[in-house]
Amino acid sequence: MILGTVVGTVVSTRKFDNLVGYKLLMVEPYFGNKENIIIAGDTIGAGIGELVLVTTDETTQHAINRSAPIDAFIVGIVDAPPVMGK
Amino acid sequence: MILGTVVGTVVSTRKFDNLVGYKLLMVEPYFGNKENIIIAGDTIGAGIGELVLVTTDETTQHAINRSAPIDAFIVGIVDAPPVMGK
Amino acid sequence: MILGTVVGTVVSTRKFDNLVGYKLLMVEPYFGNKENIIIAGDTIGAGIGELVLVTTDETTQHAINRSAPIDAFIVGIVDAPPVMGK
Amino acid sequence: MILGTVVGTVVSTRKFDNLVGYKLLMVEPYFGNKENIIIAGDTIGAGIGELVLVTTDETTQHAINRSAPIDAFIVGIVDAPPVMGK
Amino acid sequence: MILGTVVGTVVSTRKFDNLVGYKLLMVEPYFGNKENIIIAGDTIGAGIGELVLVTTDETTQHAINRSAPIDAFIVGIVDAPPVMGK
Repeated sequence: MILGTVVGTVVSTRKFDNLVGYKLLMVEPYFGNKENIIIAGDTIGAGIGELVLVTTDETTQHAINRSAPIDAFIVGIVDAPPVMGK
Repeated sequence: MILGTVVGTVVSTRKFDNLVGYKLLMVEPYFGNKENIIIAGDTIGAGIGELVLVTTDETTQHAINRSAPIDAFIVGIVDAPPVMGK
Repeated sequence: MILGTVVGTVVSTRKFDNLVGYKLLMVEPYFGNKENIIIAGDTIGAGIGELVLVTTDETTQHAINRSAPIDAFIVGIVDAPPVMGK
Repeated sequence: MILGTVVGTVVSTRKFDNLVGYKLLMVEPYFGNKENIIIAGDTIGAGIGELVLVTTDETTQHAINRSAPIDAFIVGIVDAPPVMGK
Repeated sequence: MILGTVVGTVVSTRKFDNLVGYKLLMVEPYFGNKENIIIAGDTIGAGIGELVLVTTDETTQHAINRSAPIDAFIVGIVDAPPVMGK
């Protein structure tokens, strides 16, 4: 999974019906190139600045109770920034 | 998902039958390397210059009412450019 | 999907039975890093120098009439090089 | 699969129910860009500093006895650092 | 698919049961960044120095006669290094 920071929200009124109800958040990678921000669905209620875990591709389907065309989903909020070696 | 800008259209006459009916649009990533333009299917009617959400890989199948060999699909049009921290 | 140019053929005699019958073509990305050439299956009959659309990962299975271990497949031949903004 | 070194643990209390029970480890790639650390599930008991094999995307589902929204999973612990040409 | 050269073997004694029986080979990409070595399963019997075709992600499941958590598999041995334009 990708560890990332929630840096904003994306609003889309014209979208597929089966995406309605998911908040769409911008997530900046914590490791690697921080410019590669992705858009992930959220139902947990992650807030701006929180560190989250994002799962990608078809595995997103196991995070939702219907099928939906979304390839990134927030599946957890991290308690604290990770410490290398611990 | 990838946030991107529609920058053009691709026309393919010789293609698989199950791709007929999808507009094929060039989408330039909004974040990261803008050179990595991808080709995404569209049924929403996104226009040149519009900001869109693209889902990838097998999750595209949840955007269409048949199975088709296409690994990127436009699933939403974004209302306004996102603002960091909001 | 990836837009790319067919730049050559790969011949493999010792391969999985369920790959027999697919031509294996080298496809150079049209956008982004041109060094990232991938090998894609082809049943349309794309020729050297032609511009093609390649779908990837599990979506390849919707391009073939059996299941096969192949993660890139040519699904269309593009009529003309795309023009930005059109 | 990705060959990588376990470099730390991620703790997430607020997460999807079907992720409970998997240890979440930070894995640093052994080859390529070491900055691209990913978070992988673990049930084998890999420890900090150990070299592991990580499978990704939907193939993770074959490592677990239920479906879960997780796109990286540790599937093996490597006996010794690999030697090129052997 | 990825065209690559077999550059070594990875030995893992502690691994998932459904991975037993697959040789695990290090494959160096022939095109693009050669540092991005991946670990692929093999049942064809590819040897060190041989040029092979690797399929990735869930498509690996079509190369094996059971489901297994492995996201890269060797599906063919290439007869000769490919020639551009042929």
